[in-house]
Amino acid sequence: MEKRIITISREFGSGGRYIGECVAQRLGYTYYDKKLIEKIAEETGLSRKFIEKTGEYAPSKNIFAYSFVGRDRNGMAVEDYLNNMQSKIIHEIAEEGPCVIVGRCADDILQDRIDCAHVFIHGDMPAKVKRIMELYNLSENEAKKRMREMDKRRRIHYNYFTNGEWGAMRNYTITLNSSRLGIEKCIDIICGL
Amino acid sequence: MEKRIITISREFGSGGRYIGECVAQRLGYTYYDKKLIEKIAEETGLSRKFIEKTGEYAPSKNIFAYSFVGRDRNGMAVEDYLNNMQSKIIHEIAEEGPCVIVGRCADDILQDRIDCAHVFIHGDMPAKVKRIMELYNLSENEAKKRMREMDKRRRIHYNYFTNGEWGAMRNYTITLNSSRLGIEKCIDIICGL
Repeated sequence: MEKRIITISREFGSGGRYIGECVAQRLGYTYYDKKLIEKIAEETGLSRKFIEKTGEYAPSKNIFAYSFVGRDRNGMAVEDYLNNMQSKIIHEIAEEGPCVIVGRCADDILQDRIDCAHVFIHGDMPAKVKRIMELYNLSENEAKKRMREMDKRRRIHYNYFTNGEWGAMRNYTITLNSSRLGIEKCIDIICGL
Repeated sequence: MEKRIITISREFGSGGRYIGECVAQRLGYTYYDKKLIEKIAEETGLSRKFIEKTGEYAPSKNIFAYSFVGRDRNGMAVEDYLNNMQSKIIHEIAEEGPCVIVGRCADDILQDRIDCAHVFIHGDMPAKVKRIMELYNLSENEAKKRMREMDKRRRIHYNYFTNGEWGAMRNYTITLNSSRLGIEKCIDIICGL
């Protein structure tokens, strides 16, 4: 079956976001990254900054932080509310038409749709560090630190809010090592799905 | 860099072996599966049957069995000898020319070569069970049992003899879900590498 929805999960520094953007452009699919954040902001009333930070990342401390955030009378925290709304909106945009969705647990949210290809982009440490140094103008040590922290926060968030395990092959239709294959090859392969 | 050597690791029932055979045929690469076993038999003096069973599978009991097999004065068991020889021969055939190697921890053995693409083929339970039932003329329960046992023995063998973890995305250039993509699509993607 043709894959009209492509979700892209990625390690920090692997180029996954850029790959997603190029795939959407080449296929003429709607690209959801910032656009998804704006949509969530409109529907929830939450700030873009809060959604960007919280909709895909665990707090920078640790997973237990989720237990201590402010909860309402039903025991629901703003993080749970954001997660529920995010999930609802991702289901809606999947109905609207062909699209590429980067991050935000979209692979887990849309796991039952057979018209989806779920892609995970990872890479080798040296290539990822080099990319982060260039993109964010950081030293090697700073880049390594940023990478570890971002991947850790993504993993904790994913494992907390889904039944899956972040980066476990089983969740994904295809996983690609962008350092070994090159960014262009990854784009070709995904467009060919 | 062009990938002139392709290693294929696979879950039982995912069609990985068949995919490897088709890829080799289409690209005109040498296909190593039975042929590799014959080569190892020639060089080691071990029987084809023993190599087939032991070179990729843990004993059907458990990992501790490795501690109890007969060892020589240097503490080496025939399993260790086979593993060392298998590794040496896989390095040799990689030097000889373009090829596809199925199983036998070849991805781990050749992990440092940049002219290799390491592929893992997995699949969804129902599709794999169906394939095993048809191929081996088994009932559904027998197929499930066989699948669990074979994957378990492959995993234990791989984790014992390599530094990696069987089926962990990180070891592979690309992983493909053959149930979601279809066998033909998997062949296309690998040939395009």
